[in-house]
Parts: sequence; C-alpha cells; structure tokens
Amino acid sequence: MSGQVATDAKTANSAEAPRIAATALAAFIKRAFEAAGLRSEDAHVVADLMVEADLRGSDTHGVIRLPLYLRRLKAGGIKARADIRIVRERPAAALVDGDNGIGHLVMRFAAMTAIDKAKGAGVAWVGARMSNHAGPAALYAMMPLAHDMIGLYLAVGSNNHLPPWGSTENLLGTNPIGWMIGRDGKPLTDPKRAEQGLLLPIGDYKGYGLSLMTGLLAGTLNQAAFGRDVVDFVKEQGKAANTGHAIVAVSVEAFAPVAVFKRQVDAAIRAMRGAQRLPAVERIWLPGEQSHLKRQDRAKNGIPMPKPLRDSLEMAARDLGIAPLG
Amino acid sequence: MSGQVATDAKTANSAEAPRIAATALAAFIKRAFEAAGLRSEDAHVVADLMVEADLRGSDTHGVIRLPLYLRRLKAGGIKARADIRIVRERPAAALVDGDNGIGHLVMRFAAMTAIDKAKGAGVAWVGARMSNHAGPAALYAMMPLAHDMIGLYLAVGSNNHLPPWGSTENLLGTNPIGWMIGRDGKPLTDPKRAEQGLLLPIGDYKGYGLSLMTGLLAGTLNQAAFGRDVVDFVKEQGKAANTGHAIVAVSVEAFAPVAVFKRQVDAAIRAMRGAQRLPAVERIWLPGEQSHLKRQDRAKNGIPMPKPLRDSLEMAARDLGIAPLG
Repeated sequence: MSGQVATDAKTANSAEAPRIAATALAAFIKRAFEAAGLRSEDAHVVADLMVEADLRGSDTHGVIRLPLYLRRLKAGGIKARADIRIVRERPAAALVDGDNGIGHLVMRFAAMTAIDKAKGAGVAWVGARMSNHAGPAALYAMMPLAHDMIGLYLAVGSNNHLPPWGSTENLLGTNPIGWMIGRDGKPLTDPKRAEQGLLLPIGDYKGYGLSLMTGLLAGTLNQAAFGRDVVDFVKEQGKAANTGHAIVAVSVEAFAPVAVFKRQVDAAIRAMRGAQRLPAVERIWLPGEQSHLKRQDRAKNGIPMPKPLRDSLEMAARDLGIAPLG
Repeated sequence: MSGQVATDAKTANSAEAPRIAATALAAFIKRAFEAAGLRSEDAHVVADLMVEADLRGSDTHGVIRLPLYLRRLKAGGIKARADIRIVRERPAAALVDGDNGIGHLVMRFAAMTAIDKAKGAGVAWVGARMSNHAGPAALYAMMPLAHDMIGLYLAVGSNNHLPPWGSTENLLGTNPIGWMIGRDGKPLTDPKRAEQGLLLPIGDYKGYGLSLMTGLLAGTLNQAAFGRDVVDFVKEQGKAANTGHAIVAVSVEAFAPVAVFKRQVDAAIRAMRGAQRLPAVERIWLPGEQSHLKRQDRAKNGIPMPKPLRDSLEMAARDLGIAPLG
C-alpha cells in the first residue's frame, strides 16, 4: 500500500516534470531488458507496451515499474526467456501458461489468441496462468479494437489490498477504489499509517462481490493465484507470482453490422456528452477520452520524467551496465 | 424512482407478513398469464421463474411485478405469443430476437442457447434484443451451473435512474447502488422528493464507466434500447421496451478439470469466510449465501405475502376473471 502512495505522489508531479521522447524511453527499456536476458524481439515488444502505458497517462503502470521488473528478473521471480504456450484449448477458449515470463508478453500472446479464435467463433475467452504484472488493463482490452472486436480484460492484482466485506484480512486485490480504514474499523487518514490500513471496495459489499468474481474468473479458473496464494510481487521478489488474467474478444459482426454498431455507439457517446450538466461541471467525459488527449500531448511533447523516476532508471542502468536514458 | 421506494417499503414488511406456499403462488401466476393470452407451457415457465425469484428473496423482482406485466400485456407493450428466435449466429455467439415477448421466456431461451454452444465451443456469448424485464439476474446467471459452467449476465434496466458522471440527465440504468442528489448537486434525503433526484453510481466515475459499458454490451451491441432510447416500462405501458440483455456461459472444463476447479473454489470460499473479522461483524458472507438461506426457509415455510401485495394480486385476478390466490 505504501507503493501506491509513493507512485501517486510522483504522478502529482508529472505535470511540471521534464519530458523525454517516447522513442528514447522505448530504446532505454529495450536495452535494459536485453541486458537482463530477454530475447531481443521480446525486449522490443515489452518496451513498446510499457511506453504505450506512459503515453496514455498510466504513470503508475508504465516505466515506473521497470526497476521492480528488473529486480524480479535478477532474483529469479520472473523468467527472462519463457516458453509461453497454450495448454488447454477449445474453439472459443484457451488457457495460456506463461511459464513465469514477463506479463506483457503473456497477455499479448493471450490477446492475439483470443482475436484469432473470435474471428472464427464470434467470441473467445482466453485465460492465463503463470503470468506476471502486465501494466494497465487498457493495453490488452484495446488490442481487439483494430479487428472490429470489443475487448474485456480481468486480472488478479499482484498484491492484496482489499479484505472480504466485514474482514480485516487483505485477501482480495482487484481495482479497489475506495477509502481506507484502520483495523479498528474507523477511517484512517494518516498516510504514514497506510501500511496498517485496509482499503474498502467501491459500492461496499457489491464491490467485494465484483472483486471476488474477478479473482475466481482470472485466478482460480486458470489455476493461478488468488486470495491467500497471492504473492506480494514487491516483497517476495524471488518467488513466482503465478498471476492470472483473462481476456475476452467479442467480434462485433457476430451481433450487428459493424458500421451500424459504430454509428449507434457514436450516438450513445453524443447523448452522454450532450447531457445536461451539474453546476460547475465543464464537460462530461467518456471513458478513454482523457487517456486519448494525454496520448496526443505526450506523443508530441514527450513523456514526463520526474526526478525520482529518472534517478531510479539511472540506478537501474548502472546496475545493468547499459547506456543511461540520455 | 418512486417505484423503487414503494417496493423497498414492501420488502421491509415481508419478515412479518403471512406466508403462501410456492406451489399455490406459481399456480396463480400461471392462471393469470394464461388468461392474458400466453401459451400454457410459456405461462408455466414464467410462473416458475417468478416464484424462484421470490423464493430466493428477490422480493422486488418476483411476483410483485406481475400486475405491471399484466398491464403491459393488456396495453400491447408486451406480446403474449412471441416468436423468439436466433437472428444472427456464430459457433460461440448468437443474437436472439425476443419479438417483444415476456423477458423471462427470452432470457431462458438465450441462456439455453449459450449453454448449448458452450458445450462445443468452450465459451458462448448470447445477446438478446426486443426483450422485456426478466426479473433478477441470478435466474439466468445460475442456469449454466447445472452444466458445470459459469454464467455471467448483463442487462439494460427498464428505466433510467442514473446520469453520466457530471450530468443531471438520467441516461443510464444499470444497477445504480449509491446515494441520491438533487439537481442542485446537493444530497437529497427527503423520500417525497425522490422523483426529482438523481442516483449516483458506486465508485463515482468508475461506476459510471461500468454502467456505460454494460449498456453498450447488453443494449447497443444487440440493437436494443440504451440511453435516450430506453422506454420507461412503468410510464409507457403500451410501448415496446426493446430491452437488451446478454448472457455468457463459460465451460469450466475448457480451462480446468471440473473437480479441481470446484475444490479450489471451496478453498477460496473457506479463506474468505475464515478471514479475521472487523469488530462487531458476526459472519463474513459470500455472494449468494443469504439467498440460499432464504430459499431454504421459504421453500419450507412459504413466501411472504404482505397485504398491499396480496391486494394488488387480487385486483389483477378480478380484472382477468380468474380464481384468486386462495
């Protein structure tokens, strides 16, 4: 939980931070992963996905995670050259074993598999086990879009922040947006005590249900870690996390002519955006619009690089003996 | 929104209300639908599903809706003898057109179709359009269980309670659990002013995103109503609602040996239930456990029948000229 607080603090600084070109950042990440033992083509794929996360404004799920990934690779908690493969398969379903490789490689493989299968079957659901932290969900949920498909993504978090409703034990980990309470059940607002706190889910017990469902579908169904089996990927860097994910690809043309669907989605978006606003609200946003604007800005002006982040990347470069970020 | 308040008030009374046997209630519902023009076998299916809702404690989504369904059948807002059929099909996907029939019949057909397809394909996603209110989601999400499959269900609500985040216009309708504000943006706590209020989603803008996603998947993708097109099924009783739903069936054996998966789910359940509890919490519940307990009680002791509900059913019986509840 302290990691969350620290990355949030860095995010707050990113607006005024110096910028670095996406291409330079991608080249640095690729160098680092090659030095850590990845195949060159794999290092290239992961670097591009991580930079895409930063371009879209996922400051907590992009390059900021590189030092941790490198430490886990060094400690044996992630395998540099993994044999990612399908171990169970049906016309519209597959289970991918990631062989403890980098999560980005596993989930890209899973998403490609889902897209291929959905071309024939209309819909496909691909689960993954023995994977790792894969950055922001949007990277994979968006992959089917280029094929006129809708993508849905589920994952078990890489550490548990969230207790079952009524409990003080952090057994759940998915997307817990809420407020923090102490073990006495009272609100906890002192950030220095964050490690002692519990996050409460969105929608109270309903959020607990959603988190539990996500864990069973992305973890248990794939024989990946969930609940007590979840490995804290920051604290246990030498241990395989057995992270579970699932990606669903839904081919639009299985349900509607693609052009008709796109026109209707446009109309729905216009209705939301044009709806009457509460006082002091300047604009009604649709999901993804702010990421899109950030991507336009950062592709042109570079990715913010606050000093603590640059320092951590320079330390990683020294450890690996590679050329620094420049 | 006033309908919500009224049904909640009835629910509160149900604990002390007189009880009626499930079989007697099902027979009454069947009589009512036959008198309203349904085929006998269809009336039987809908009656059983509606009583199942009441048995499981879905007091707001079971027989309490019968008078409204009957009024809509009479006004032409629902078709008594519909030709429910698949209009678009892939190995793992189908679109069902409900021909404006009773929602329970449409969604039972859709769930059966999904189960059949998932037997071959591993996973199947079936959407429905031109459907109607179908009672509680659990009825359909549970149907795949008997086939060792997991069920997921999505629907567009039968009226809009929820504005896009930042708006004052109710354009969304799915599962909005939250608090109510007035059009001035301030909390609204006077139940008499509920009609003027707006419900806010769980998790603030995240809940808005979930609701929007659900509407696009269950409505727009199936060419069913969403957003401004949603027909308020209470206020516009003569107009087809074009309700959209989606059901996904996930065959467990496509991902894991069924016995292994069940054992692992049992372990996850035990971990949640056995987790350390907050002060004053007597038990940690899993989703579905309270419905299960209610079902055991009501199957044995009958379904609560508060006087306002009984009165409304007796009025419906007089209108249709059928034998009363007894």
